[in-house]
Amino acid sequence: MKLNIAVLPGDGIGPEIMQQSVKVLEAVAERFQHEFRFESSPVGAAGIEETGDPLPEATLELCKKSDAVLFGAIGDPKYDNHPEAKIRPEQGLLRLRKELGLFANIRPIKAYKSLLEHSPLRPERIEAADMVIYRELTSGIYYGERSLSEDEKSATDTCTYTVEEIERIAHLAFKSAQKRRKKVTLVDKANVLETSRLWRKTVTRLAKDYPDVDLDFLFVDNAAMQLILNPRQFDLILTENMFGDILSDEASIIGGSIGLLASASVGTTYSLFEPIHGSYPQAAGKGIANPVASILSAAMLLEHFNLTKEAQAVIDAVELSIKLQISTSDIGGGHTTKSVGDFLESLVLEPG
Amino acid sequence: MKLNIAVLPGDGIGPEIMQQSVKVLEAVAERFQHEFRFESSPVGAAGIEETGDPLPEATLELCKKSDAVLFGAIGDPKYDNHPEAKIRPEQGLLRLRKELGLFANIRPIKAYKSLLEHSPLRPERIEAADMVIYRELTSGIYYGERSLSEDEKSATDTCTYTVEEIERIAHLAFKSAQKRRKKVTLVDKANVLETSRLWRKTVTRLAKDYPDVDLDFLFVDNAAMQLILNPRQFDLILTENMFGDILSDEASIIGGSIGLLASASVGTTYSLFEPIHGSYPQAAGKGIANPVASILSAAMLLEHFNLTKEAQAVIDAVELSIKLQISTSDIGGGHTTKSVGDFLESLVLEPG
Ligand SMILES: [Mg+2]
Ligand SMILES: [Mg+2]
Repeated sequence: MKLNIAVLPGDGIGPEIMQQSVKVLEAVAERFQHEFRFESSPVGAAGIEETGDPLPEATLELCKKSDAVLFGAIGDPKYDNHPEAKIRPEQGLLRLRKELGLFANIRPIKAYKSLLEHSPLRPERIEAADMVIYRELTSGIYYGERSLSEDEKSATDTCTYTVEEIERIAHLAFKSAQKRRKKVTLVDKANVLETSRLWRKTVTRLAKDYPDVDLDFLFVDNAAMQLILNPRQFDLILTENMFGDILSDEASIIGGSIGLLASASVGTTYSLFEPIHGSYPQAAGKGIANPVASILSAAMLLEHFNLTKEAQAVIDAVELSIKLQISTSDIGGGHTTKSVGDFLESLVLEPG
Repeated sequence: MKLNIAVLPGDGIGPEIMQQSVKVLEAVAERFQHEFRFESSPVGAAGIEETGDPLPEATLELCKKSDAVLFGAIGDPKYDNHPEAKIRPEQGLLRLRKELGLFANIRPIKAYKSLLEHSPLRPERIEAADMVIYRELTSGIYYGERSLSEDEKSATDTCTYTVEEIERIAHLAFKSAQKRRKKVTLVDKANVLETSRLWRKTVTRLAKDYPDVDLDFLFVDNAAMQLILNPRQFDLILTENMFGDILSDEASIIGGSIGLLASASVGTTYSLFEPIHGSYPQAAGKGIANPVASILSAAMLLEHFNLTKEAQAVIDAVELSIKLQISTSDIGGGHTTKSVGDFLESLVLEPG
């Protein structure tokens, strides 16, 4: 397969972890005889520095003509002390998501056996937990109309969902569940919210097209409990934007390291893959950043193009590296960013 | 002190746990020479059975002429199979909260040392965790306007807050923090929502009246993580209705037993105290229900009327009973509902 991949390293540890991901993808191309072409462009603070824009025109163009976007991380402390600043690195990603129509955010959560001790949860609760969260990303209350009354005595936010917005992500979720353990849990607050009732009605109707998938429902407050009490019960969680924001961050602690968590944001035409950790500026340039989340994001890219055995080769390599503690210090290893990347590259080229 | 207390046992295990709470309060009255008068009235399914109304007129009148309401639990499986039923037990509590103007829901969360093993979290993470959540209870998106478009293709919910609604609960929260570790964490999503910005602005302004209290801020998605990663960092969490619903249910798992969690709902004139567990109909009449959550709710009632040493006597008794495993099976003991109540009664009358 030929793939043109836009590489947006961004800020902080972004560039150094991205190097490892590209290296691993190149190893995949070599072993499985694909042709991956990489082109880089700045975004975030790096974009502001070069062009004054956190999403430079050339970067957006590159993304639009590529098959997929591999994204590092953005954010620079230089801008954090000026929350009122008009231009901020984070705008680069928000605008990119919007421009590319990335309506579904996908976050796998997995408890790796050899990392159980790093989780704040008891090992016996999380062992073998393996779920994925499908969060609607471009609608709901985060994108609704909002207003402050003229006397500043009252404020309003609005949450709106259309059937179409619900259907497009629900189809993705059901299709993904078919390749997993065939269970979708819709999280909502249908006992109170009208939008939740529309979600429930729409998803229930769609479920008939996927008779091999079980659909169940959970209220968001209960879901926040169940994620901790018994994370193993979940296969695929489907939910709206704000509930997904809260629950996916909550779920991110299950595995014990945010340095392992990958994500994909997909739309009808475009797709973007990024680690969920931030730019971690304190660690930049020190060679201590964990490249695994970015490399697992690259595996999600492969999966997205149905390169299943290629994705599995990367995942297998990562799992072995964790088991052998060929890892960075955040998960108990003593290796550098580059040496973890080198090890994964060699495993992909010549699996044990 | 003379107190008229309305007792609303409700459904399921409500009546049997309520008996224990009344018994313990009677012991408090005897030891500390107060005059507590109790009057009972049905609510929930019990209300429907007697009068056709989950909140009978006589019950509401009783609450309005009492100093405080002690509430058991409501809900009956008989109604759960008819989600479309016009009359449901739960309406009794919702209407009562509204009629009594109970705008602040208060939930203490504590990790008891002798119960650490029951928590899904690692003991070292939660040991000595001790926080209280102040949740706004009568506004926000749960009470906002909602609509479904005529073609049923789009639904909307609205979240509105006024400065006054924020101020009245924020004052309660700051006052409570002054008696605790003097730290208020406002949880919001002020980077996105207009209502959250109004919360932040209003609470920041009010904080000047409480110079001895530290105020900090946390976005709700991060708060959902931090509650599990490091619950000890929190003293008092203040938040709006829906965020409070999600976070207080999430936090309820910290201590390891929902059978211990008490709550208060207070307004300007009235106050209501209830365990957070439900009516648990499967356990009704078996003598296995844990009365502690209800008894700790009674302690919150005492606290509410500034009967601090009386409240402490009840809390001390509960802590000793847990330590000695004079408890029900849900937290590892082998005692009945009544024998736990008897033990607490005797401890309050004659503390070791
Ligand atoms: Mg988030
Ligand atoms: Mg709730």
